[in-house]
Amino acid sequence: MKTKKLINAGADAVDEMLQGVLAAHPEHLYAVDSMPRAIIARNGPRKGKVGLVIGGGSGHEPTFLGYVGKGLADAAAIGNVFASPPPDPIMACAMAVDGGVGVLFMYGNYAGDVMNFDMAAEMLALDDIAVRTVLTTDDVASAPADQQDRRRGVAGNVFIFKAAGAACDLLYSFDEAERAARHANARTYTMGVALSPCSLPQTLKPNFQIGEEEMEIGMGIHGEPGVARGPLKTADVVTDELMDNLLREMKAERGDRVAVLVNSLGSTPMMELYIMMRRVKARLDGAGLVIHTSLVGNYCTSLEMAGASITLMHLDDELQRLIDHPCDCAMFRR
Amino acid sequence: MKTKKLINAGADAVDEMLQGVLAAHPEHLYAVDSMPRAIIARNGPRKGKVGLVIGGGSGHEPTFLGYVGKGLADAAAIGNVFASPPPDPIMACAMAVDGGVGVLFMYGNYAGDVMNFDMAAEMLALDDIAVRTVLTTDDVASAPADQQDRRRGVAGNVFIFKAAGAACDLLYSFDEAERAARHANARTYTMGVALSPCSLPQTLKPNFQIGEEEMEIGMGIHGEPGVARGPLKTADVVTDELMDNLLREMKAERGDRVAVLVNSLGSTPMMELYIMMRRVKARLDGAGLVIHTSLVGNYCTSLEMAGASITLMHLDDELQRLIDHPCDCAMFRR
Repeated sequence: MKTKKLINAGADAVDEMLQGVLAAHPEHLYAVDSMPRAIIARNGPRKGKVGLVIGGGSGHEPTFLGYVGKGLADAAAIGNVFASPPPDPIMACAMAVDGGVGVLFMYGNYAGDVMNFDMAAEMLALDDIAVRTVLTTDDVASAPADQQDRRRGVAGNVFIFKAAGAACDLLYSFDEAERAARHANARTYTMGVALSPCSLPQTLKPNFQIGEEEMEIGMGIHGEPGVARGPLKTADVVTDELMDNLLREMKAERGDRVAVLVNSLGSTPMMELYIMMRRVKARLDGAGLVIHTSLVGNYCTSLEMAGASITLMHLDDELQRLIDHPCDCAMFRR
Repeated sequence: MKTKKLINAGADAVDEMLQGVLAAHPEHLYAVDSMPRAIIARNGPRKGKVGLVIGGGSGHEPTFLGYVGKGLADAAAIGNVFASPPPDPIMACAMAVDGGVGVLFMYGNYAGDVMNFDMAAEMLALDDIAVRTVLTTDDVASAPADQQDRRRGVAGNVFIFKAAGAACDLLYSFDEAERAARHANARTYTMGVALSPCSLPQTLKPNFQIGEEEMEIGMGIHGEPGVARGPLKTADVVTDELMDNLLREMKAERGDRVAVLVNSLGSTPMMELYIMMRRVKARLDGAGLVIHTSLVGNYCTSLEMAGASITLMHLDDELQRLIDHPCDCAMFRR
């Protein structure tokens, strides 16, 4: 059985999406000439500011496109569905947003992205554009705690990019912007649960199989295997399982503040997310932790996958200031 | 086959969702004491301002809850999934937001809502709270053009509530606020397409049947029958079919401005919405119409239904000003 999608030719889906994004948000975004996969903020990039380039595969909208704008990322390089962008649009992004003091690359830790962003960085060095890279590794289910640099980047991207984007907008030096970005990543923890697969526009076939009454804890946003598959439990039990892991990783003390994201992987409705949010609040209250801010909705998706993830960012004074800093993107505002 | 949902007991879903909403957005929203289905804006209601109360069944999130806040609605009365709220929370909303100059009720034109909101209005009259009602009727597929008052209210609610909320925030008189609300509704046109059913938390069973390769044009947001069922077409063909109807209804002249909403019914991802947006832009360009603003995403959903709707609001100077007026809600900001 094929998934029904409102698309034209599957091979055109990403480029047609980008045309629609520019049609909807001309005041926020433009594409580099003859490089439609390099999407730049109209407002934000400027002389003396570290340029922030994010990017990765399509299919996670509003990640990455939606986080391009004043106070957040300066540009996003867009790949095919669930596939890294090649070096060309990454380079075009960097050149468009370079303010003369360095360009920061930030993206989820996936082999294909690392290869392509690194190639772009090497070529940019020949043009005297200095690039540094901070990988996001917030998915606690993707590798053990003593191998954090092997973890993948998932929905925590939203908070990590937000903090780094604010640091750049506040004209942090290149060293300081990189430090703040690493600090934001190191204090951000995500874990998810998948209930159904999604299907790519070119195949319309499910990207994995799962039983009619099963869930998979810890599955990645491209269907990477998780840590446990079993019968679907209630929202409270699932939320507890995720929160147990997140709280264990975070090692917060009573009175500490957190930013919370309860994120839909695609087709899980807000009703279910808020039911989970209710339990997140109860667990944080129980641990004596304070919710400084919370986001609930579709922030980092896997097309129409059913499921959700919970992200906690362990705030300190600096991260709180960076998360609260205003931003104005086509699909996200604070 | 039952739909998998991240819920606890189905009967608790709405109340647990509301607890999660208050946990996530305490700075924006509160519930009336002992009336958890009456959700009030912390900021917005005030002396001398017409109070704006919206509401209806749950399952359409972020409609209605998400549009409660300064510059938009003052309160929302929340029903069970796809069912009208009873009079009690409606009355509680009106009493909480009454600024002494009248309360406007706005909601989609459904028999159950009309009955309950009218009963509340009658009882409020006994307490000397003057209520007027403006029904939204933007769904052009739900009745012929010569029977607009029989049409249902769907995703166009977002623009219609936005315009009315701005009018109230700008301290329009009761007469003027009602006029502006009717004016906004009269110039707003929506048509949708459904690809899959959704299921209610208490049954977990699909609310209608549709073939594996079929779509239904004009289906309502509770699964009400549409105007045509047939094989799924490409995004461009589907968009054209919707736009043909909307443009015919709108009777705009070249150079006129519109606000556009491309809305997911739940599980249709942003990629597909933006592919549709691309075609909407082409059709508006072809008609010589100017996009003043556009929204693309989950704005008025039917739980996890797959499908989308397109809304056009035919702007004039007043509506443009009202749509541009700032608002600050938990789930929507301008």
